Amino acid sequence: MLNEIHFADIAEIIGELNLTEATYIIKLLDSEKTSEALMELEEDFRERILENLSAKEIAEELEEMDTDDAADVIAELPDELAEEVIAEIEDEKHAEDIKELLSYGEDTAGGLMAKELVRVKETWTIAGCVREMRRQAKNVTRVHSIYVVDKEDKLKGRLSLKDLLTAPTKAQISDVYIPKVDFVDVDTEGEEVARVMQKYDLEAIPVVDHEGVLVGRVTIDDIVDFIKDEAEKDYQLAAGISQDVEADDSVLELTRARLPWLILGLFGGLGSVFIMEGFEDALAKYKELFFFTPLIAAMAGNVGVQSSAIIVQGLANDVVKGSLFNRLVKEISLSLISGITLGILVILFGLIIGMEMDFSLTIAISMLCVIIVAALIGTFVPIILDKRGIDPAIATGPFITTSNDIFGIFLFFYIAKLMLQF
Amino acid sequence: MLNEIHFADIAEIIGELNLTEATYIIKLLDSEKTSEALMELEEDFRERILENLSAKEIAEELEEMDTDDAADVIAELPDELAEEVIAEIEDEKHAEDIKELLSYGEDTAGGLMAKELVRVKETWTIAGCVREMRRQAKNVTRVHSIYVVDKEDKLKGRLSLKDLLTAPTKAQISDVYIPKVDFVDVDTEGEEVARVMQKYDLEAIPVVDHEGVLVGRVTIDDIVDFIKDEAEKDYQLAAGISQDVEADDSVLELTRARLPWLILGLFGGLGSVFIMEGFEDALAKYKELFFFTPLIAAMAGNVGVQSSAIIVQGLANDVVKGSLFNRLVKEISLSLISGITLGILVILFGLIIGMEMDFSLTIAISMLCVIIVAALIGTFVPIILDKRGIDPAIATGPFITTSNDIFGIFLFFYIAKLMLQF
Repeated sequence: MLNEIHFADIAEIIGELNLTEATYIIKLLDSEKTSEALMELEEDFRERILENLSAKEIAEELEEMDTDDAADVIAELPDELAEEVIAEIEDEKHAEDIKELLSYGEDTAGGLMAKELVRVKETWTIAGCVREMRRQAKNVTRVHSIYVVDKEDKLKGRLSLKDLLTAPTKAQISDVYIPKVDFVDVDTEGEEVARVMQKYDLEAIPVVDHEGVLVGRVTIDDIVDFIKDEAEKDYQLAAGISQDVEADDSVLELTRARLPWLILGLFGGLGSVFIMEGFEDALAKYKELFFFTPLIAAMAGNVGVQSSAIIVQGLANDVVKGSLFNRLVKEISLSLISGITLGILVILFGLIIGMEMDFSLTIAISMLCVIIVAALIGTFVPIILDKRGIDPAIATGPFITTSNDIFGIFLFFYIAKLMLQF
Repeated sequence: MLNEIHFADIAEIIGELNLTEATYIIKLLDSEKTSEALMELEEDFRERILENLSAKEIAEELEEMDTDDAADVIAELPDELAEEVIAEIEDEKHAEDIKELLSYGEDTAGGLMAKELVRVKETWTIAGCVREMRRQAKNVTRVHSIYVVDKEDKLKGRLSLKDLLTAPTKAQISDVYIPKVDFVDVDTEGEEVARVMQKYDLEAIPVVDHEGVLVGRVTIDDIVDFIKDEAEKDYQLAAGISQDVEADDSVLELTRARLPWLILGLFGGLGSVFIMEGFEDALAKYKELFFFTPLIAAMAGNVGVQSSAIIVQGLANDVVKGSLFNRLVKEISLSLISGITLGILVILFGLIIGMEMDFSLTIAISMLCVIIVAALIGTFVPIILDKRGIDPAIATGPFITTSNDIFGIFLFFYIAKLMLQF
């Protein structure tokens, strides 16, 4: 029954089974079907299934996969097994291609691309091209574009299927091809590949090596996964989750991803204990200051996370333009508006519950300062990290909230001390 | 000079200009070029440029756009102007198509689809089909798939370009087409369309009306934008930003998106002021309890955001399976492991700074309870919202941190009161 249904549905069914049943199904069905289903499974479940297969059985699955998928699977295997599996692949060209892909960095165009594509030489005729295309297209799931190369395999341009259908059969490729073609280098970062493909609405982009030789192509479906993974990673970092985990991962995996950030938060909290002990003298006269610290910490945290989230997204989408000074002015005016509004609310609250005016004012003004500093930290920490080539998303979430908690509470007490003179 | 370069680059240049210059460029260049560049601009900048154009000029731009883009632009215009613009469109079929698209919900397959596609009747021959295809393909930027319909225009299946190239020219379409084809209904939610296209790795999906008549198709580039927008919206909600804003938006727009969440946080903070006033009696004997409140609030917030982020992502990716009871057990074991580890660290810290053991223990145990409750709130609030058809992402960020601050601080003092008996 399974032979009749789509591989993505088979993958969904296998995902619901236990390991023994899943392995049985994989061994039972045709590699043509299971190789695609395997690629749709959760990475860790796939790894566990592959552990139950022999090197030869894994090699059979890989024979049916596109080179980029096959390389991804091999990269997940232990080194020794990986070599054994490659040696078992019968199609030598396929094995060569996979080895080549493994030599590129995981998040580069080289690591994302597949070797499967349709290439034609500029000296061919349209008729020869159609013949050759039919032969090559067997190995290529989707054609997208036909790439035109010179006799040294250097990328010259592309040919659309529409052109191929409408050109006279005796015309030479060099007369009809489009010499303008976007391409990326094997070393181009995945993020940049995603940006170029989105900007120019491309569904596939050719990849060349340092000599300009066409070596592969990246298709939009790999980029969709890449964009999703990137967005999920940023989201998880903002929430304080340090590895790629899912709701259905084990308790241990989830703990490993979450606990480090909680420990960071704990140290931050212990830091604020020290700060408050330092201002202990104020406790007798201004105990309400201590009741307001969670509010100040929450404000500092919220403002900081908002600012950093906007900057992190802006950096990712390349819209953070203009000088740092302009950004400084903008963040300060923004925090002034928010801070003054919130300050007025605090003073109104003070009037209602009958707090003394100078005390309400102290809280409102020191909160305003905390908000400005929190916005600046939230804005400039990601910008500085980005300038130094570090992923700015790391600076969002618990990192910003924790450091803003400490700075915020210290600043709050310090300004209160100046104003109330204790 | 601009006429020679890619529309995406023109859009980038226009994005750097002021409104007068941008409008001038749009009026100067060919609509064929500017219509595509307009679609690449920021929504609000495009709106302001269009305000400077006459209904006739806007209509000329729309003539060159695909129907889905044209409908998006019209949806942004004031109602009266929109009608004027539609009346000015010369190509009546194009105007009809745009009006049809405007009648569907924005985030449904109907709202996402374009009317441009290549359709062939099952009774045609391959030769007739190629002839017809060449005619239709002029209006279709990318062909992807050829859709096969019966004489009532009902979707029957699809034909790949490969099949078209290899089949004998006299064969009838009905003999060679693939009757299995994924499709969606005009009312299908955008999220579901994205899920289906990703699951089956589709680059385009046909859309049918309630009678099964082929009315349009959604292409992967629209879905890439959709996936990105969705991910960005969730990310911004988690960071406490309530509308779609960018780093380069005006101070006022940014304030409007951020201030409501800060006010929510302020009320939460004021709530915790009341709670602490309620436990004021403990101040004389256990003032350190008050120094620890920012730590407790931070822990409650961090744990809550982690739990809700994992659930929100899990719900989006459809991996939250199994009973609510299993999830309960999982979250409790997870928080027990984290809470006990963090509790031990607090006790060690207490030993180092010389806190009394029963006081350290009180803090450790009440923190453990706070962490468990925070994890449960973070997990179940999004699940409940999702069950009621509300976007669970709203529950992340400031909402969870603020409510967990209040619950956490109350629980902390309440348990401390029970244990220390003040």
